[in-house]
Amino acid sequence: MQKLAIGIDIGGQSSKCGVVTKDGTILEQSVVTSLIDSVDEYIELLAGTVKELIRKTANQGTVVGIGVGAPNANRIDGTIRYAPNLRWARDAEGNPCVVNFAERLIAATGLHVRITNDANAAARGEHTYGVTRGIDEFIMITLGTGVGSGIITHGRLIYGHDGFAGELGHVCVVQGGRQCNCGLKGCLETYASAMGVARTAREFLQNDDRDSLLRKLDPEKISSKDIYEAAVKGDELAKEVFVFTGRILGHALGDFVKFSSPKAIVLFGGLTKSKEFFHDEMVSAMNDNLMQVWKGKIDILYSSLKESDAAILGASSMVW
Amino acid sequence: MQKLAIGIDIGGQSSKCGVVTKDGTILEQSVVTSLIDSVDEYIELLAGTVKELIRKTANQGTVVGIGVGAPNANRIDGTIRYAPNLRWARDAEGNPCVVNFAERLIAATGLHVRITNDANAAARGEHTYGVTRGIDEFIMITLGTGVGSGIITHGRLIYGHDGFAGELGHVCVVQGGRQCNCGLKGCLETYASAMGVARTAREFLQNDDRDSLLRKLDPEKISSKDIYEAAVKGDELAKEVFVFTGRILGHALGDFVKFSSPKAIVLFGGLTKSKEFFHDEMVSAMNDNLMQVWKGKIDILYSSLKESDAAILGASSMVW
Repeated sequence: MQKLAIGIDIGGQSSKCGVVTKDGTILEQSVVTSLIDSVDEYIELLAGTVKELIRKTANQGTVVGIGVGAPNANRIDGTIRYAPNLRWARDAEGNPCVVNFAERLIAATGLHVRITNDANAAARGEHTYGVTRGIDEFIMITLGTGVGSGIITHGRLIYGHDGFAGELGHVCVVQGGRQCNCGLKGCLETYASAMGVARTAREFLQNDDRDSLLRKLDPEKISSKDIYEAAVKGDELAKEVFVFTGRILGHALGDFVKFSSPKAIVLFGGLTKSKEFFHDEMVSAMNDNLMQVWKGKIDILYSSLKESDAAILGASSMVW
Repeated sequence: MQKLAIGIDIGGQSSKCGVVTKDGTILEQSVVTSLIDSVDEYIELLAGTVKELIRKTANQGTVVGIGVGAPNANRIDGTIRYAPNLRWARDAEGNPCVVNFAERLIAATGLHVRITNDANAAARGEHTYGVTRGIDEFIMITLGTGVGSGIITHGRLIYGHDGFAGELGHVCVVQGGRQCNCGLKGCLETYASAMGVARTAREFLQNDDRDSLLRKLDPEKISSKDIYEAAVKGDELAKEVFVFTGRILGHALGDFVKFSSPKAIVLFGGLTKSKEFFHDEMVSAMNDNLMQVWKGKIDILYSSLKESDAAILGASSMVW
């Protein structure tokens, strides 16, 4: 019987579980809600799903462990720490708290459990099954609601002394800039995430009085999807929002190159759907911020994995 | 007979060579000038020194290889590329060029040769023999004429895909800031090096008319040593130069932590002699630019090795 792994991708809204073979085929998968208030109930739901998936694939192989990608998850101690967007990861007063996640899931399933943050899981998935197979020096940047990152050097993820390495979404890109949820100001995440792009659009709408399709919408409810759709229709202001985003992101990527000199930077996540509107500006801003030795030599790649699959695959690859 | 290694530290003015045991004792050392116009003559001088050192230590062991730390040296292909401060590394028109350094030194000595950039060599020296023995996650920042860095994760130096990782001296710390020799603007090196500190002093002297001991000096010739000596005598303007430097450096260190989450940052080089005047401001600026999970938890250390020894030891450790 072949060995199988379970990969779990935990998001704020939903959690995806899959049974994966060593060569990266997802045999079965299942989605459960993450919108649960009690950690006990959430773990029970997850363990039930895991058992059901094991039952369904019992004739194809033996599940030997679980890999989990989750926001603010720490590989070293198995905890999820102060994740603002996980409803079940809060204390009695409703504040984000520390959850001994790996320990709880082991107790509930009897299986080995490894956890890591979602961006690290995506980097692993890409390295094992995606566009950076065979590339041992790269940086993965996830452009979703926030901005995450996973850094691979010598073919291994950098975890740092405490498991928290790779918080490139919180590198300061504008001194004294936008207030970030993390407490700092001017973080990359406040500009180059879905959230950040919406913020830029609101600022642009407020700061000039040009006509724009976006003026028909409630400013507080504008989403990155609205801006993308307006840009597709030729809306100048919407297109400028992406150019502005690309410039800030590209300049930051240049500085990241000076750290680990990657062969490639891989972009992943919802915002990459709008790449046609920011790619050129991003690449040119990155090269403007690189020394001669790197100018024009760093590849910008986009994830080749289906978004929902990448995280499951990456998480499952920790089992091997 | 025990095995011995030769460590060579190449600087713009002089080159230091030493014979080192595996436990880090320097048995013999010798200094030669770097102020030579021809690469052939320079290699001949170096090879002669190596042979002399081998002769002197022949009764104590057998030299099995040479490790070299030099500016702009690339471990992967053994070249020194466009080093602006090495007189012998220029083409016929006097422009910095590419020198096949390892290949030439092998030919001249018949020994194995490994080269790496000077900051990487210092990081290795510190990791093997200095203040970060046993610490496998740290960043070394060299504050000399320029700013260099060596990054250790999982106990290994990060080289990147091309050998040029760790150019943190050229991370942009002030957008559109000071022009750097590398071609970019606002690089950390233009503020937090000996050169940068002198530049800050000149700006401060120009921008206000307060009295200062530094006004007695020719502004173009002010050195970081002059500023240190003035600060020791209580000169307010000189002290402010270091506070300004500490603030910029500390903010940058905060961003570096978000990359590799090191246990410690080690500072090394001439500018650290003035640490009493910038340390507190630097630490507080770093912590102001860190998320809660790191605030107050990253150690700032100073190299424990004699400056001239550290580079020789680090370079020699590549042989083992």
